[in-house]
Amino acid sequence: MTAPTPPHMAENKTTLVVLDADPPPRLGRLTGRVRIEHADESTLASLLPSADVLLVWDFASHAVRHAWPGEGPRPRWVHTASAGVDHLMCPELAESDTVVTNARGVFDQPIAEYVAALVLAMAKDLPRTWELQRAREWRHRESQRVAGTRACVVGSGPIGRAIVQTLKALGITTALVGRTPRSGIHGPGELDRLMARADWVVSVAPLTDETYGMFDARRFGLMQPSARFINVGRGQLVVEDALAEALSKHWIAGAALDVFEREPLTPESPLWDIPGLIVSPHMSGDTIGWRDELGTQFVELYERWEAGEPLPNVVDKQRGYVPGS
Amino acid sequence: MTAPTPPHMAENKTTLVVLDADPPPRLGRLTGRVRIEHADESTLASLLPSADVLLVWDFASHAVRHAWPGEGPRPRWVHTASAGVDHLMCPELAESDTVVTNARGVFDQPIAEYVAALVLAMAKDLPRTWELQRAREWRHRESQRVAGTRACVVGSGPIGRAIVQTLKALGITTALVGRTPRSGIHGPGELDRLMARADWVVSVAPLTDETYGMFDARRFGLMQPSARFINVGRGQLVVEDALAEALSKHWIAGAALDVFEREPLTPESPLWDIPGLIVSPHMSGDTIGWRDELGTQFVELYERWEAGEPLPNVVDKQRGYVPGS
Repeated sequence: MTAPTPPHMAENKTTLVVLDADPPPRLGRLTGRVRIEHADESTLASLLPSADVLLVWDFASHAVRHAWPGEGPRPRWVHTASAGVDHLMCPELAESDTVVTNARGVFDQPIAEYVAALVLAMAKDLPRTWELQRAREWRHRESQRVAGTRACVVGSGPIGRAIVQTLKALGITTALVGRTPRSGIHGPGELDRLMARADWVVSVAPLTDETYGMFDARRFGLMQPSARFINVGRGQLVVEDALAEALSKHWIAGAALDVFEREPLTPESPLWDIPGLIVSPHMSGDTIGWRDELGTQFVELYERWEAGEPLPNVVDKQRGYVPGS
Repeated sequence: MTAPTPPHMAENKTTLVVLDADPPPRLGRLTGRVRIEHADESTLASLLPSADVLLVWDFASHAVRHAWPGEGPRPRWVHTASAGVDHLMCPELAESDTVVTNARGVFDQPIAEYVAALVLAMAKDLPRTWELQRAREWRHRESQRVAGTRACVVGSGPIGRAIVQTLKALGITTALVGRTPRSGIHGPGELDRLMARADWVVSVAPLTDETYGMFDARRFGLMQPSARFINVGRGQLVVEDALAEALSKHWIAGAALDVFEREPLTPESPLWDIPGLIVSPHMSGDTIGWRDELGTQFVELYERWEAGEPLPNVVDKQRGYVPGS
């Protein structure tokens, strides 16, 4: 009599390769059903041929782009625990049959709150309040009302739409700009006009060939001197030198960057102490429990994939984002 | 032939005494109809007997309380360019026939936005972000979602109600506490229970005998260790030493004070550098244009008073605030 093959030894078991520094939470639900292999920058290329599924957990890594155009079979499905897919897309992946999904939904509300926090902090002059507190100086100032001001939100995915909802709830008049004009969404041709009248310009577009460097000297020059710029999308959407110059020349009144051309920002970066610029370390969407949510989301997608059901959050690999509803 | 008496010389002209450091804006509309006298701490007592109306423009002054129980007639109407009336109320004024009105309405939305700014800044750890930026240090942290948290707003006047509306718009569950329980407003007997389960306790009650020192060591001891306290009402609502101790012992996670027992805070005050405490200089309601709004509001009230119409914003002098609608 032969002992039955334990499920985890069955030959037809799925191999999940996880690109990560630390093991993701919530994958315990897959125990016994999936063979999990961990990969890093140096081992990914050799593991890819045996991978059925690739989970890109370390969204700061560019290892996928470097390993993809390699030898042997490729996984049929790649999921990234991030909203943006710019760090993994390459022509070979885009042209392949591999399905790419993203973490659509997890970051919407947290990033919307973060943008509201920045807008209100700037309107109420909180950075100066902190400076004065540190100096033990009582100096009354008049601050700004946000109700009645105008925001232009660039990026019409779920995060951009959540930002619009939150800013509207604060009485801010909003305009949303996306690649494809449709009901409630302005096309790229209207961006200049909308930026010129906005009190707040919020950048949350996906990083693609079209959006790379879109916030440049010309566009900062269109803004009102009283207006502020916020980037919670990707660093490469912004020409950082141009923003620094716009701030130093008072073309605009202030800015906040949560994302940068190169992350982490080094201690030598001139961006740390540009007057009027708030620098934060790519944390706008990362609220307590976010890793659990990302893990749970992957497990739910995995179970659909295993059952042969259609996956949500499928990225249009040519466009570089999940097309809007 | 006798020249007609110019209106401003007519004996029956109204005398308006203005207690202020700088002349209020928007009073030009009363030119020729009203004799305006300016008073300060030293001259108010001698000017009061000739005053028909007193406008308390300098809301930081306690001159009214010092001058009121004096000789001779008193003005029939006192208007203060502030929401609180604690700085001018005294038993003699409370028992007199003089009508007292306040600046109800002007500060509602600005203070609600300011409270939202503080809530979001604390949830998103912005003070620490500023510290790290100053130190040129990239340190990712997880922050908190505000949607789904609970706030207890203490003070059910128009400012407290505006705060509730704004926090609700951010997805925060709110409870409003006032002196008189009614629809949507909890009575003082429920305060301890509501504070104990709140993530945010917001103090915006009027300063009266009942509310003086209401936020003391016992009440801070009821709060959750993860909760934060915000005071935008009056400094004397809070026992400052007890708050400092609650913060240093980590009974609560943070606090923000915009008002203080003694204002301005002196450079020697220990409050400036208590870890977890945000100090701002009594500015929560003071958005650009606020003085114009206060001036316009007074002129509108004056014209009603001149026409013999009933005044809005009449303070219940025994209670110390305008009773709620």
